[in-house]
Amino acid sequence: MLLTILGSHSATPLASAHPTAQILEMKGHIFLIDCGEGTQMQLRKYKIKFSRIKHIFISHLHGDHFFGLPGLITTFMLMGRETEVHIYGPKGIKNAILTFLKVGKVYTNYPLYFHELETTTSEMIFEDEKVSVETIPLDHRVYTNGYLFKEKPNDRKLNVEAARAAKVDLVYYNRIKKGEDVVNREGVLIPNEEITFDPEPPKSYAFCSDTVYKPEIAIQIRQTTVLYHESTFLEDRKDLAEKTMHSTAKQAALIAKAADVNTLILGHYSARYGDLNLFKKEAETVFPNVYLAEDGKRFEF
Amino acid sequence: MLLTILGSHSATPLASAHPTAQILEMKGHIFLIDCGEGTQMQLRKYKIKFSRIKHIFISHLHGDHFFGLPGLITTFMLMGRETEVHIYGPKGIKNAILTFLKVGKVYTNYPLYFHELETTTSEMIFEDEKVSVETIPLDHRVYTNGYLFKEKPNDRKLNVEAARAAKVDLVYYNRIKKGEDVVNREGVLIPNEEITFDPEPPKSYAFCSDTVYKPEIAIQIRQTTVLYHESTFLEDRKDLAEKTMHSTAKQAALIAKAADVNTLILGHYSARYGDLNLFKKEAETVFPNVYLAEDGKRFEF
Repeated sequence: MLLTILGSHSATPLASAHPTAQILEMKGHIFLIDCGEGTQMQLRKYKIKFSRIKHIFISHLHGDHFFGLPGLITTFMLMGRETEVHIYGPKGIKNAILTFLKVGKVYTNYPLYFHELETTTSEMIFEDEKVSVETIPLDHRVYTNGYLFKEKPNDRKLNVEAARAAKVDLVYYNRIKKGEDVVNREGVLIPNEEITFDPEPPKSYAFCSDTVYKPEIAIQIRQTTVLYHESTFLEDRKDLAEKTMHSTAKQAALIAKAADVNTLILGHYSARYGDLNLFKKEAETVFPNVYLAEDGKRFEF
Repeated sequence: MLLTILGSHSATPLASAHPTAQILEMKGHIFLIDCGEGTQMQLRKYKIKFSRIKHIFISHLHGDHFFGLPGLITTFMLMGRETEVHIYGPKGIKNAILTFLKVGKVYTNYPLYFHELETTTSEMIFEDEKVSVETIPLDHRVYTNGYLFKEKPNDRKLNVEAARAAKVDLVYYNRIKKGEDVVNREGVLIPNEEITFDPEPPKSYAFCSDTVYKPEIAIQIRQTTVLYHESTFLEDRKDLAEKTMHSTAKQAALIAKAADVNTLILGHYSARYGDLNLFKKEAETVFPNVYLAEDGKRFEF
């Protein structure tokens, strides 16, 4: 699981800090999460292959989370893309994007699907053999969802030596990896755990931006491997966080602690703060394992 | 007259090359011409004061010329702007921009005026005491205008010594600068040219992008100080230029020559060309005074 931060700042972009966009690589998928202005330039800068992005998840329809989408959709077209693109985002996104493209007579030459969201309870929006994605309902000034990306449990690992010793036939290997007990060449039932190792535990990533402090999130994201949680403000401006429906670094850490996640990544910093280390320090008073999202940073888990 | 190139490349932006956007400083005005994705980051990078931009001119509604507009409009709002903004562009721009903003419940707190254009003959769209701006109808795949920015003639310069020697009263100085003859303290009519110097000739800037080769442009922009003309291709792909309704560097130079302009600036390069000097060389076979637009370059005239 590899996370690349393309943009990590809040609404007003600085010359050197881009609005929210992330790439999550999970089990062969390349998921784009949010798409602030300039995302396509950042994708080029960090050498992410455009053609491998098939699923785009937009949290909400504030500009710093989706104004890069028309440009990316157009660039896909100019590159001669043929494979489909799926965009998941709040109801209204399809009309907004298509109105914006049609005024320039732009029509995609690849299949573009919009999956518009409007429920305020969590729903599974994507699933295949290897991963699932579900919404995390958040509370912000407009309808907003976070997204929870989960690997499916991995196959058990074959203990080749033990399997040979137990005289298990090669033909059963795929069933063994799925956890089945099998009968060996001598007709004896061999319990699965005797000839396999436990697999790597499946990893998961919760993306939570933008939201006011919402402790209930912790239930849905319990024991998630990595939590990205917005921290637009520090506690010194908790009042402003509440008013604008954002969170502080400490509040993000409280969620991480309550959910018992492994790692917390902070981001979506207000431009008023010069020293990002203050965010890390504030969160560490509550939760130990804190990292800062910064443009171009890569996290491997 | 100062021109800052914020972006100089065509549709597909590279990591290091932005789509079209320029700042023209003329007689105290700061005009933004086109606004491709990432323009607001470029404005910050090159330290252009956002609050001084009051007039934005959009040539046409292809993404590489206006996808930066929603972000800039939103940032103006977040910065607490109160002064008005005027956007000039093709009919349809208002609905597209407002649809895009309203989906995120964004409403500006400053007066935002859209001036939608639809005529295919040149029209004066802005004028004050010091400058005028008129459209330059272009031929592209969608409705497109270039823009011609003209300084009004400057006041004549007072020849202080000559005025004193001619016994002209100080009270007439403002009328003298406007070119009037005046009667001196002894009742003698003093011809204006005896007590003034010729002013600096007014400067002008023609922005022509995007367009197929359109020789008629030369008539309207005759003896313009500086012509920016798109050159998406070189002559080697003249066929593609025609097909996509763009121009070659040589064609841009033919316009410059026919119009007898002082300086030609090329830009809007296709990403297929690695060496931009080829554009300059090709244009110089026709017209001598050629410069290349490149991101961050400043031209003073």
